[in-house]
Amino acid sequence: MSVEQRFLNYIKKIDNYEEALSVIYWDMRTGAPKKGLEQRAEVVGTISSELFRLQTSDELAEILQELSTKKEELSEIVRRSYEETQKAFDLNKKIPADEYKAYVVLQSKAEAVWEQAKEKSDFSLFLPYLKGIIEAQQKFVTYWGIKDNNPYNTLLDQYEPDMTTDILDRVFGELKETILPLVQKIVASPNQPDTSFIFDFFPKEGQKAACLEILQQLDYDFEAGRLDETVHPFMIGLNRGDIRVTTKYDEHDFRSALLGTVHECGHALYEQNIMPELDGLPLSTGTSMGIHESQSLFFENFVGRNKNFWSHNFEMLKKHSPKQFENVSLEMFLRAINAAQPSLIRIEADELTYPLHIMIRYEIEKELFNGNLQVEDLPKVWNAKYEEYLGIAPENDAEGILQDMHWSGGSFGYFPSYALGFMYAAQFKHAMDQDIPNFDELLAEGNLTPIREWLTEKVHQYGALKKPFELLKGATGEGLNAQYLADYLKEKYTRIYNL
Amino acid sequence: MSVEQRFLNYIKKIDNYEEALSVIYWDMRTGAPKKGLEQRAEVVGTISSELFRLQTSDELAEILQELSTKKEELSEIVRRSYEETQKAFDLNKKIPADEYKAYVVLQSKAEAVWEQAKEKSDFSLFLPYLKGIIEAQQKFVTYWGIKDNNPYNTLLDQYEPDMTTDILDRVFGELKETILPLVQKIVASPNQPDTSFIFDFFPKEGQKAACLEILQQLDYDFEAGRLDETVHPFMIGLNRGDIRVTTKYDEHDFRSALLGTVHECGHALYEQNIMPELDGLPLSTGTSMGIHESQSLFFENFVGRNKNFWSHNFEMLKKHSPKQFENVSLEMFLRAINAAQPSLIRIEADELTYPLHIMIRYEIEKELFNGNLQVEDLPKVWNAKYEEYLGIAPENDAEGILQDMHWSGGSFGYFPSYALGFMYAAQFKHAMDQDIPNFDELLAEGNLTPIREWLTEKVHQYGALKKPFELLKGATGEGLNAQYLADYLKEKYTRIYNL
Repeated sequence: MSVEQRFLNYIKKIDNYEEALSVIYWDMRTGAPKKGLEQRAEVVGTISSELFRLQTSDELAEILQELSTKKEELSEIVRRSYEETQKAFDLNKKIPADEYKAYVVLQSKAEAVWEQAKEKSDFSLFLPYLKGIIEAQQKFVTYWGIKDNNPYNTLLDQYEPDMTTDILDRVFGELKETILPLVQKIVASPNQPDTSFIFDFFPKEGQKAACLEILQQLDYDFEAGRLDETVHPFMIGLNRGDIRVTTKYDEHDFRSALLGTVHECGHALYEQNIMPELDGLPLSTGTSMGIHESQSLFFENFVGRNKNFWSHNFEMLKKHSPKQFENVSLEMFLRAINAAQPSLIRIEADELTYPLHIMIRYEIEKELFNGNLQVEDLPKVWNAKYEEYLGIAPENDAEGILQDMHWSGGSFGYFPSYALGFMYAAQFKHAMDQDIPNFDELLAEGNLTPIREWLTEKVHQYGALKKPFELLKGATGEGLNAQYLADYLKEKYTRIYNL
Repeated sequence: MSVEQRFLNYIKKIDNYEEALSVIYWDMRTGAPKKGLEQRAEVVGTISSELFRLQTSDELAEILQELSTKKEELSEIVRRSYEETQKAFDLNKKIPADEYKAYVVLQSKAEAVWEQAKEKSDFSLFLPYLKGIIEAQQKFVTYWGIKDNNPYNTLLDQYEPDMTTDILDRVFGELKETILPLVQKIVASPNQPDTSFIFDFFPKEGQKAACLEILQQLDYDFEAGRLDETVHPFMIGLNRGDIRVTTKYDEHDFRSALLGTVHECGHALYEQNIMPELDGLPLSTGTSMGIHESQSLFFENFVGRNKNFWSHNFEMLKKHSPKQFENVSLEMFLRAINAAQPSLIRIEADELTYPLHIMIRYEIEKELFNGNLQVEDLPKVWNAKYEEYLGIAPENDAEGILQDMHWSGGSFGYFPSYALGFMYAAQFKHAMDQDIPNFDELLAEGNLTPIREWLTEKVHQYGALKKPFELLKGATGEGLNAQYLADYLKEKYTRIYNL
């Protein structure tokens, strides 16, 4: 058997184990009976251990070594699969086994302590664990290799290949210049939307029916997916023919399910439309966290909050909760779902202020890893930045520095992806407008297929075959440009708040 | 680490793999999107291969060998776990690897050919494959060891430990003496129940609501299980805290979902109530196919077709399909769901005639393995037996010899379990009547907990710790006795048909 064939067989086995774990994960989060969860955790442990063994085995090392000598002979698909496999292998294997083991233990403790600390709103409990996690990550960066003399770049690259602080400083700087004055004007504006009806009762069954209708309209393929209920909504790709979305029905805030489903659908459309040639390979997934998020945010914001989308769907929505919308016009509805206001909690933030939450985290992470910030000072720095950017400050650690679980799991460098996704989405939207000048009309007709097809042609089909910047260049003709998002936010919020 | 601890760790790993496969299996049968099934099959292949490797490894052989020398020192639970593991190991390993591999290939072909043959109603297509399967099984029996000079006993023992043709000949003979004349009288009776309303429209959502209410009443623990829809209903135990039931809603025959759910619930109650000490061990399951079936049939027939159960539930049922039952009295309803009539298809048969379908298969299998019957003669023999026992003969192979898939999978010795289950159930019911003389009153009150508790005490809790005859003796004070089932059928059908 050729080394190439051995490699393909090997990584397909890894892919099979990952799919098995995904089924188990999906099941645990969509209705597995609670009394079975303790033993189920052991199943996850056993299967994950075998997966980790496969991902780090001497056999794989030997295959990768042999492949590395003949990269030029490989097809593009096999070469990219090799690169991704090698990258994941290095991530695990460059760290000495005993250090990695100690880190896994620390991480699992840190997650538990973070939960308690958040409950008690006491950062000091979490402090020593967070310190340990950061020190370990700093050491790991030296094993992985420091990029451009900048340890934080090494971390960014894990979530967003080739992303650097130079690029982020530039685009976040540009974006801030637009967003900060906008936020101030909105807060001061007398034209606040009436959002009260949003919190009226909307029965769950009606929300579910509306979500299903919208998924259908968004070109979600129900023969290759399904919608289920969960506590923390997510999209999960088992394989290209099985890309599931989940949602949460809040009977006193329909946005959670409605816009949440549109968001997850964006993720799902990406994975349902990857080219079949990548099936079973590590390339049959999004190429980065940021590009993945660009697809969900494209649908959530540019489709799901668009006037024309709702001119088509508002009657349908009203049908499922007639009383709630009795005295609500389409105009009122649109202003309400597009309202913006500074707030303390990232995951509850609106489109306009969301990027500021990310910038705060980015600036903090960057300084932490470049040695300019002490972990002890985090709450103080956090609160000062919220005051500076959003004009409000947390009253305690739970609604401030402790709100996100990411750091307890060692995920530094992840946060920027959320804002990057929004910038990518706006940039895709601008490019799409050149090819599909009747975008709004299509939404008004409920015909989203051409929109989905454009994204499939430019983005979806490639999976992780192209890296983010290559994909962006191919789809939009340029590198990352924050102006499109800035323009979009400025136009939109000036209009909604009559600024 | 002691060999005992090594053994326990090893079999818990096997158990974890089995649970992973069960989650995947459940998912595939309750709504996994069809476009993902092809790749999912590869996942099943990969995980099953690793499971098979674990079940047949040299490491396990060595552990079992070491344990075999110290059986006396082991606790009862570990000893029985050892015995079950050794039995499964021998089943796989006593067959030479190449013969086993060839058999697996033949089996998968045979299943596909059986399906085609059934579709075309042509036994001759299936004949050569069935011959091959039987020849292989006959050879395997010699590897496994012929019990009591009777190859068929070796097969029976795999599904029903310690069961023999001597016992089956006796109990089936006794049962036949009661059933055959009863069937003849029923066919000739002028008092046929009116079953027409059964086929009226009963909306699926109403059936589902009724099934959920009944499950609750039967003491099914929803924190350790769930109800889902499927094509071929089944119960599946993932672990003791996760025992799931499934059902099929036929809007023109509510019996499928209603009585089917009661049936699967009987299986589920068994596995939900096994003692926690057996968690993760091969003993945390039913002790045999027959005992498992006794629990489902106990609930389906002795509870689900009981007058008092419906005196409590009929109003609830009517609520979910008011029009259908407008002119149906409880009396009419009971006669209808207890109707009996000779028919050709086993899985559609009623309580009374079902055992005859099993006896026909048992007699044929026994003769096949004892060399007194040629595979070529099967359709002829089959049809003659149907004529003799049920007074009707199949018009073609599809509704005759080809109706069941069991033989294509090599499952010889399995069929008797179905009828044994019914006999066990009647025997348990007779013993329960001594302890719970107010059985009917409890049903009429909808208080089934004492009934479930009796079964848990006598049957459920032991899992596979006690073997079938030991369990039966403990619960009823005697060995297998067909008289209880015969008495039950005679009393019931004489009453219903005014014989």
